[in-house]
Amino acid sequence: MNFADRLKEAALQKNSVVCVGLDPRLDQIPSFIVNKAVAEHGQTFTAVANAFLEFNKGIIDAVHDLVPCVKPQIAFYEEYGFQGIWAFEETCKYARGKGLLVIADAKRNDIGSTAEAYARAFIGKTDFFGEKLPVMDADAVTVTPYLGYDGIKPFVKVCKGEGKGVFVLVKTSNPSSGDLQDRVTRDEEIPVYELMGHFVESWGAEELGECGYSSVGAVVGATYPKELKRLREVMPNVIFLIPGYGAQGGGAEDVKDAFDEDGFGAIVVSARGVIFAYEKTGATKGGEDFGEAARDAVIKMNEDLNGVR
Amino acid sequence: MNFADRLKEAALQKNSVVCVGLDPRLDQIPSFIVNKAVAEHGQTFTAVANAFLEFNKGIIDAVHDLVPCVKPQIAFYEEYGFQGIWAFEETCKYARGKGLLVIADAKRNDIGSTAEAYARAFIGKTDFFGEKLPVMDADAVTVTPYLGYDGIKPFVKVCKGEGKGVFVLVKTSNPSSGDLQDRVTRDEEIPVYELMGHFVESWGAEELGECGYSSVGAVVGATYPKELKRLREVMPNVIFLIPGYGAQGGGAEDVKDAFDEDGFGAIVVSARGVIFAYEKTGATKGGEDFGEAARDAVIKMNEDLNGVR
Repeated sequence: MNFADRLKEAALQKNSVVCVGLDPRLDQIPSFIVNKAVAEHGQTFTAVANAFLEFNKGIIDAVHDLVPCVKPQIAFYEEYGFQGIWAFEETCKYARGKGLLVIADAKRNDIGSTAEAYARAFIGKTDFFGEKLPVMDADAVTVTPYLGYDGIKPFVKVCKGEGKGVFVLVKTSNPSSGDLQDRVTRDEEIPVYELMGHFVESWGAEELGECGYSSVGAVVGATYPKELKRLREVMPNVIFLIPGYGAQGGGAEDVKDAFDEDGFGAIVVSARGVIFAYEKTGATKGGEDFGEAARDAVIKMNEDLNGVR
Repeated sequence: MNFADRLKEAALQKNSVVCVGLDPRLDQIPSFIVNKAVAEHGQTFTAVANAFLEFNKGIIDAVHDLVPCVKPQIAFYEEYGFQGIWAFEETCKYARGKGLLVIADAKRNDIGSTAEAYARAFIGKTDFFGEKLPVMDADAVTVTPYLGYDGIKPFVKVCKGEGKGVFVLVKTSNPSSGDLQDRVTRDEEIPVYELMGHFVESWGAEELGECGYSSVGAVVGATYPKELKRLREVMPNVIFLIPGYGAQGGGAEDVKDAFDEDGFGAIVVSARGVIFAYEKTGATKGGEDFGEAARDAVIKMNEDLNGVR
């Protein structure tokens, strides 16, 4: 089954277009979880990895019936080395086991044969003594287009065979995204993000699902609503993965143009605003209620977004 | 000591501007190494990781006195999950122990706070129960500029404190690099790669070492000699990391314009052409001579490049 169809089905079933970002930070994990991991594993990277996994499981348990997907950001795991990557892999596995689609936020990019290795790592299967085995086994992965189609094609190829998806950076949510993305090209007289939009639409043209969307999606930040609106026109068959809601300043009104008449076509991410919601609720006692606080935050975000789509 | 100064010192000492790419592929590792790892660890990802490390150690032992640096490409490790990342970390450690500078080829990129996590992972130190600990502990890392300066700044900041370096993708060696990089901007009337060149020169302007080069380098492919020549004019204070020599088609003549009057200013990478040289030498017996073959290939490459710089 095509990735776009899988994502739409999950979104309809949960009546949600929310994606929870699983971006653990050691100093924001409730201390009872960290203390337990340290008691078992000492002050080691293994303890950090176990604390991350325990925390993520708590979040997943609390929200899995409310959202179609989660998005672990691999940078936060990678900074604890191979032990951190172990926690990333186990998090992906646990989330999938709870019926969630997993979007690995890795923003990988490289030339052809190296991009193939990344594609195998995240969404495909690796060569293993004549067998093919999944590694991260995510449902989709984010990629960067600076190297052109060579760096995207290997991912698209894997998507086709495996029902997986890829989200290409088009217009990112950060303040300096315009350094390159807003430059206007001489020949087309359009900004680079719009040029990339045309590319992404074409790269997925042969990968359309029943729902009309392709398995090649685009990352479009909530913090640039005007650009988002234009990109929706440029990419009618592309699912938007939208960061920048909440902590970064984007709101429901800023993303409403991303949705189609069925209320689909985009997935909106919140990480800190959900997973560390417990820090802002007055009733916390050592963070034991981090799951409930996350659940409450997701319910509120679902209501917020369902109001505009 | 500034990264550029460290790299120049190493290049002078070895009389070499060669960087050996450590890009292991399971089906190209000599079978005696793979068989030994499988005998010890079964047909597991751990066996693959051990085979990669054993192979890399053999290459490092064979070439460490001939070259200033090595460049492991993390994609090839990542496709064997956390076990592969373990081999990556151990490879970095072993290479540094043999006096080599390590350039982690990761092409990471993300927004500010996430880029900070990547910077800590590769060249900095991570937060660890109030302490700061190195993780990958590479000497430099490659990054992608699609997100603008937000995604670069955290790396530059770490470079300053730690004597580390960063190489920003400017003009890559792959066939479709032009999809985005060759587009001409309307306002500046220069291609995107040249615009990026100006950015990289400015991003490193305050990070100059004694040698006149900055800790912010640029990736410029050997396969586009005309663009390389132009970029040398645009970035007089930037060290070039040059892929595309050998297997991808670039030769010494194609890269000669990258060097300054001291014969420095650029580092040229070869991976497959060195580490799998044993596949082309007739004398191999099950690959036992892979180290000698790699050493011969490096000697030849040193001669080739020393002839034009």
